[in-house]
Formats: sequence, C-alpha cells, structure tokens
Amino acid sequence: MGGPSIHRLRVRYGETDAMGVVYHARLLDWFEQGRTEFLRRVGPSYKVLEAQGVFLPVVKADLAYRVPLRYDDEVEVETRLVRLGAVTAEFRYLVRRVWDGASAAGGGTVHACVNARHRPTRFPLVLHQRLRNEV
Amino acid sequence: MGGPSIHRLRVRYGETDAMGVVYHARLLDWFEQGRTEFLRRVGPSYKVLEAQGVFLPVVKADLAYRVPLRYDDEVEVETRLVRLGAVTAEFRYLVRRVWDGASAAGGGTVHACVNARHRPTRFPLVLHQRLRNEV
Amino acid sequence: MGGPSIHRLRVRYGETDAMGVVYHARLLDWFEQGRTEFLRRVGPSYKVLEAQGVFLPVVKADLAYRVPLRYDDEVEVETRLVRLGAVTAEFRYLVRRVWDGASAAGGGTVHACVNARHRPTRFPLVLHQRLRNEV
Amino acid sequence: MGGPSIHRLRVRYGETDAMGVVYHARLLDWFEQGRTEFLRRVGPSYKVLEAQGVFLPVVKADLAYRVPLRYDDEVEVETRLVRLGAVTAEFRYLVRRVWDGASAAGGGTVHACVNARHRPTRFPLVLHQRLRNEV
Repeated sequence: MGGPSIHRLRVRYGETDAMGVVYHARLLDWFEQGRTEFLRRVGPSYKVLEAQGVFLPVVKADLAYRVPLRYDDEVEVETRLVRLGAVTAEFRYLVRRVWDGASAAGGGTVHACVNARHRPTRFPLVLHQRLRNEV
Repeated sequence: MGGPSIHRLRVRYGETDAMGVVYHARLLDWFEQGRTEFLRRVGPSYKVLEAQGVFLPVVKADLAYRVPLRYDDEVEVETRLVRLGAVTAEFRYLVRRVWDGASAAGGGTVHACVNARHRPTRFPLVLHQRLRNEV
Repeated sequence: MGGPSIHRLRVRYGETDAMGVVYHARLLDWFEQGRTEFLRRVGPSYKVLEAQGVFLPVVKADLAYRVPLRYDDEVEVETRLVRLGAVTAEFRYLVRRVWDGASAAGGGTVHACVNARHRPTRFPLVLHQRLRNEV
Repeated sequence: MGGPSIHRLRVRYGETDAMGVVYHARLLDWFEQGRTEFLRRVGPSYKVLEAQGVFLPVVKADLAYRVPLRYDDEVEVETRLVRLGAVTAEFRYLVRRVWDGASAAGGGTVHACVNARHRPTRFPLVLHQRLRNEV
C-alpha cells in the first residue's frame, strides 16, 4: 500500500523564461500540485484539512533541475511521503518528461503542521494514521 | 494633490517567457504595485484598509502591450484613479520604459469595494474623500 | 469542426492570494492553456508554429472576474476563436466552475502574428484555412 | 572588497497565498533579483553576460522559510557568492524583514555556466577574476 502519486501536467507558456525553458522556481508550484494529488488519494484532501483548521506551510524546500523542460512538454510529477513526525512531514518529488522518460528534475519539501494562527499543532489522528502507511 | 503615482521597477528574469520578453500576464502584477503605491500616497494604504475589513478585488481588467519589454529593463508604472463610485473604483496604468521613455504597455482595473465576506460595502469615508480629490 | 475547446484544470495553491481566492492575473495564464489546447485541436499546435518561426504574442487582453475561485476548485476553460485577420486573431474565454457550472470569469486576448524578430507576418496558409473554419 | 549585495523590495499582493503569507516559491524569484543586483555591482551585469552568450541557469536551489511574510512587508535580500568553480557558482541569500530585522527566510542557488546551446562553458575571464574577489 502507499507508493507515490503521479500527476501529469503540461508546461505553460508563462512558466518558461527568456532561456526558452521552464524557470526553476515554477518547479515548486508543480511539487505543490503533486502533493495535493497525493493527499487527495490518501485523504482527507488538503482542502478539507484547511477547512478543519490544519495547515501545512512549506518551511524548507530544495530542487535540482537537470534537463531543460520546454513549453508544451508533458511531465509527470511523482510524489512520495518520506518522513512523518508528530508535527512535520517531508515529501520528495521526481519530475519526469513523458516523451522520453527523462528524469528532468527533483526535489523535496518539509512542512510544519500548524493551526490558523501559525502555531504548531498535531496532525489530525485519522490523517496521521493514513500517512504512516505511506512512508 | 491629485495626479498619478509613479512606481519604478525592473523586469525580473522569471517575468520573461520563451519569446524573450515579459509575459503579458505579469503586467497585471505590476499594475497592482502601482495601485499599492498610489493608495499609500493618498492614504490609508491598502494594507491598512484590509486590516479594517475593506477589500478591493479586481472585477475587470484590460491591458495593451505595445513594445516588448525585456529582462532587466527599468520601467515606470504610472497609476491614475479615473472613476470613483460608492462601491467601485477604476484605475488606469501606463508602463513606460525608462531608457527611451517608450510607452510600452497600458491598461486598467475596475475594483469592487467588499467586506471580508465578499459583500459590497462602501468605501470608508476618509478614504472616499481623499480619493475624490484624485479623480 | 468549429466550436469551442474545453480545458479542465484545478486551482493551484500558488494561484490564490491573501483574500483566499484566485489572484485575477492568473486567469490570463489559464486563458493561455485554453488557447494551447484550442490550437492543438485545430493544428498545427502552437509549439509547432513557433518551431516554424511564427509567434502569436498577446497585444491586448481583458478579463472579468465574477465569482471567487478557490484552491482546488476544478474549472473548465472554454476557448473560442472569434475574429481572424491576415495578421491578427482574437480569442474569447469562459471559465466555468465545475461543481455548480457557475460562470466564474471570462475574457479575451488579441494576438499579432509575428516572426522571430517581432515583425508582423501572415499566418501560415494551412493554419489560416483551418482557423477560418473555427470563427 | 566584496561582501554581500542588499536589494530591498516589497511583497506584492500576487505573491501571497490563501494562508495570507508569501507563497514559498516566490522566494526564489526574490533570490534572482538579489543575484541580478549582485552581478550588476561586480559587473558585467547578467544582462550583458547573456548578450555575450553566457548563461547561468539554476541547477540546484534550496530555501528555508522561518517567519511568515505578508503583503506590503518590506524585505531586504542579502546576496553572497560563496563558491566559485571553473563552470559553476553558488550564491547564498538571506531575506530580512525590514521593520524588525527578523531573519525571515534564506537559501541558496547553484548555477552552471553554459553557452546558448546549454553546453558547459567557462566564465568569461574578467567576470571570473571579479567574482573571485567576492567569494
């Protein structure tokens, strides 16, 4: 059980820069989409979490960008949960170019679990149990 | 009293696209900066407005993009208030390239004045009086 | 033949702003995605066009934002070609919220057909013929 | 000689997200601005470098986001060059909130020096000499 979630997307024109390739910072926006789909699969979705007053802001992130991605390229974002604490979680991502399977980019994000006042709070029990099965 | 506000900025790399020029949608981000500086000059600032529960979401916007702007170009955003109703306001913007004064882009935004629940609300009296002097 | 293209997407977290809703400028990024899928259907795709030295920069754009869209909302972007000249084209867009069908936003973009040096150029003949069937 | 470059900016509304704070990915856009001003001071500017066919794409990046930044906050981005190889360079950044001096965020970027075809190339000699004085 568990395993990564796969989210497919296409490079938008506005995500490219004057070098003709995807601007590196946009990868973090894709990681977020991968994470959203990961949490939707494991459930409850992040939208539901926030409605319950639980937020997972990014406190650390890293990325490596190996193969230039271009406008209209199809890519797959593979998302895994790799670490789960009482009030933190870490995800890792792999961005694969669809047409040749090239591992184009990767990275990770560390999240704090906080309430609406940005104070550390524990993961809701049901979510924590489900996430534990995914690590 | 009255007259436009001028805000100077430089084109960021991440604002360019694969054509080598500023991606058109980023102009709206610049208009927002011009508007922020306009309201700061007239006062109270938009930050203070929001703290008072008054929001000015964009309900309409338009732009014209005439001269390609490139990375590191310095531009000036000139912001004017052109129309003020009880619960709406309209701003117009001009984007001038600094080195040659070229009128590179322009546009406008129409705003609704709403409360935290997105319900129409009147401008605070002090702000409305000050804005009237600017139209 | 003819008719609009429909492109479905989900609101990304990074597309929202401090009002808790989609930041208006991001709508233009979605319009671009709708246009990309429209041209892919009619063919040749915009990627292929650029490879042939034909570019369609946005010279004018407008938008109306009626219903606040939120993180994780599914929306459909409906794209139509409404005007086709020798060296210009105009698209119109409608953004519908999927769960209730609300017409949340709309707008349009006017494009110039230019070559790699940003000089006006005619649409490639095949593309022009195909686009004419779509207006 | 050397030392960090300081670049001051204000949080744009479009850089915030539904949590009411700056979306983490936008920090990378600020790092780029810091880097641009760093290179302008050391010279030649990055714009001039690109005109000479030298590009410095980001191949790795990391960030830590400690103190939530909000719309209209003034911040200073402090940029240092910390490592310089024959075909790579590493910058580190610190983002300080102006009103209280809080160290709100930080991070780094590793760059490859490449030519217009994305092939590794050496830094131009003059630039390399100047950068060596900054490490």
